[in-house]
Amino acid sequence: MAAEASRTSEARRDAVFGRWVVFSPARSRRPTDLKSHAPANPSPGAGAAAGAPKPSCPFCQGRESECAPEIFRVPAPPDASPWRIRVIENLYPALRRDAEPPAPEEAGEGEATPGERAVVGFGFHDVVIETPRHDVRLWDLDAAGVGDVLLAYARRVRQLMEHPAVKYVQVFKNHGASAGASMAHSHSQMLGTPFVPPSVTTRLNCMKEVFERLGKCSLCEFQSKDILVSETHNFSAIVPFAASYPFEIWIIPRQHSSYFHEIDKDMALDLGSLLRTMLAKLSKQLNDPPFNFMIHSAPFGVSSSCLPYTHWFLQIVPQLSLIGGFEIGSGCYINPVFPEDAAKILRELDC
Amino acid sequence: MAAEASRTSEARRDAVFGRWVVFSPARSRRPTDLKSHAPANPSPGAGAAAGAPKPSCPFCQGRESECAPEIFRVPAPPDASPWRIRVIENLYPALRRDAEPPAPEEAGEGEATPGERAVVGFGFHDVVIETPRHDVRLWDLDAAGVGDVLLAYARRVRQLMEHPAVKYVQVFKNHGASAGASMAHSHSQMLGTPFVPPSVTTRLNCMKEVFERLGKCSLCEFQSKDILVSETHNFSAIVPFAASYPFEIWIIPRQHSSYFHEIDKDMALDLGSLLRTMLAKLSKQLNDPPFNFMIHSAPFGVSSSCLPYTHWFLQIVPQLSLIGGFEIGSGCYINPVFPEDAAKILRELDC
Ligand SMILES: Nc1ncnc2c1ncn2[C@@H]1O[C@H](COP(=O)(O)OP(=O)(O)O[C@H]2O[C@H](CO)[C@@H](O)[C@H](O)[C@H]2O)[C@@H](O)[C@H]1O
Ligand SMILES: Nc1ncnc2c1ncn2[C@@H]1O[C@H](COP(=O)(O)OP(=O)(O)O[C@H]2O[C@H](CO)[C@@H](O)[C@H](O)[C@H]2O)[C@@H](O)[C@H]1O
Repeated sequence: MAAEASRTSEARRDAVFGRWVVFSPARSRRPTDLKSHAPANPSPGAGAAAGAPKPSCPFCQGRESECAPEIFRVPAPPDASPWRIRVIENLYPALRRDAEPPAPEEAGEGEATPGERAVVGFGFHDVVIETPRHDVRLWDLDAAGVGDVLLAYARRVRQLMEHPAVKYVQVFKNHGASAGASMAHSHSQMLGTPFVPPSVTTRLNCMKEVFERLGKCSLCEFQSKDILVSETHNFSAIVPFAASYPFEIWIIPRQHSSYFHEIDKDMALDLGSLLRTMLAKLSKQLNDPPFNFMIHSAPFGVSSSCLPYTHWFLQIVPQLSLIGGFEIGSGCYINPVFPEDAAKILRELDC
Repeated sequence: MAAEASRTSEARRDAVFGRWVVFSPARSRRPTDLKSHAPANPSPGAGAAAGAPKPSCPFCQGRESECAPEIFRVPAPPDASPWRIRVIENLYPALRRDAEPPAPEEAGEGEATPGERAVVGFGFHDVVIETPRHDVRLWDLDAAGVGDVLLAYARRVRQLMEHPAVKYVQVFKNHGASAGASMAHSHSQMLGTPFVPPSVTTRLNCMKEVFERLGKCSLCEFQSKDILVSETHNFSAIVPFAASYPFEIWIIPRQHSSYFHEIDKDMALDLGSLLRTMLAKLSKQLNDPPFNFMIHSAPFGVSSSCLPYTHWFLQIVPQLSLIGGFEIGSGCYINPVFPEDAAKILRELDC
């Protein structure tokens, strides 16, 4: 990587998850006698004939009957395909909407081993089909098209929020086999869980600690221009100061705001445009890498005293290398690319 | 997988990391139109002619001069190879032993953004070469041979502990390309860090919370025989109640004990025998999968009031599938195999 430079190692702790990350440019020079770590399938859309539905893909237009039930669709103009976006149930759900929602703190103390807990697998697991066409990637849509996908996420999150047992909704996208995707057709997913997931608790605790100590929200201030990639009226795209992954990007609303699902049409269009540009930049710079993106929002029903330090954002993670035992064991990542270097490369790239 | 059964989803929280895991047997049936998620390189040793050093492998006997400096070696009997185990410096270290150790809480409040911290990348990054032979895997050694590797870890951890700026040592092994390994020759690594890594803090906080509430160490009691795979005089091997990964195994000392590095020769022999059997079982059942193992111990210099709830263990994680955006975003894992089912399969397997 170009900007490897002669810098030496540095350890940084971020102010959102409280995670330590080790930056070590020297690591990118180590040899390997095992097969390439490169993504097995960087470009999942490739290979499909332009415009043609893939014969076996249930997410393609015309094969709606092979999918689990539709929740809602975003219609297309009358002369085009019957829909532009579909939100459907996941046919192989991790959590089941028909299960009995757990009672609060059910099965708490009765477990075999101290401190463990088990509840039935109640929850919602939905798929958002972002386009009727098999060969179109999210960033092939225009800004309004990406904005509409974001509005579909927000609308579905608001619906799930109505369910009293749903504590959090994790919105995420997997693109490419090495990023975990099993389906090539452009889509994202969300899981409504009956518990607040561990990373969300950690994030809130960390941001709370910073807020109590310094009186500031961890995400409201970025004094350093070095990590900025791009800005719009409402959002900043940065490579975070303590990025866990090389070329990781965070898109953050510039105005303090706790909940993603409260975005309006203008905000969604603005975010759509920035997200589109960032995905195009990653694709161009890193040769269409597999990636994940995740929306980090506040859990439902937190007390209003938490709102000053919860600030939602969208995290994009290109999957360029595999993690190993150090990361799994310690929760601490080794990143060979300094955020300032990644930001500079992405900033200067024309997209 | 055989024991998939007709069970429905369940969410479980473990008592060590406080993590929620979603168990969903139905997930293992989902289709894919992307390339196989199977490990690219399940058997890193395979391909080398039996007994022959690989021409380019610096970890092979006879190529010691191509390695970073040796820290110590475990000699072999006089008529055999000059060494059995070597502990060496990592040639591409993530943290540098020659850097200036950070002063406590250095660079704390002066950062550009509230709550962030940066320190120079001081630390130790070592490699343990487990055998002079390129074609020998760890579980090809006998119990005493594996025990000696464990004793080499413990000896090096004790050395690193002497350094006042080292707060924790993460011992880990990567086996196979999909588990992150870049070198095929059987080895493990350790990183001595100038901070307590995030997962260690989370683990200690969770075990403390359980201890304060129930007066019990989370790892001293396993009332359920269903998750037990095997037992020796000093250790139990289980598939943990809320395993994040299918066929994950924990080897836990049966006597409460905070620090791995305090094991003696008898304990190491006993653990060596159990670890060997578990790795052989995973290899047989899952077709020589890539895997990681990690030793979870207590940080140095914790107060003696923490010792009643810190209990060290060794975690083995076969890498059978890739994680996706849900796991990265939420810290919550989806596991298609119930621990009781995995334990039963492993228990019944003869090795
Ligand atoms: N006809 C149909 N109708 C409706 N839904 C259908 C369908 N056919 C398939 N599906 C669903 O479509 C989804 C496609 O999702 P992705 O390709 O993003 O990854 P997947 O969820 O398989 O797993 C990745 O993401 C999850 C969550 O991060 C990780 O647990 C996992 O390891 C990783 O591989 C699957 O969840 C599948 O169940
Ligand atoms: N001649 C020589 N002398 C001394 N040392 C030598 C050497 N030649 C190579 N090495 C070192 O040997 C080590 C071999 O380690 P592994 O194969 O276990 O994985 P690696 O550390 O490369 O990365 C995996 O593990 C780390 C930590 O978990 C992850 O960050 C990463 O993404 C993952 O691929 C490397 O760290 C390398 O620097």
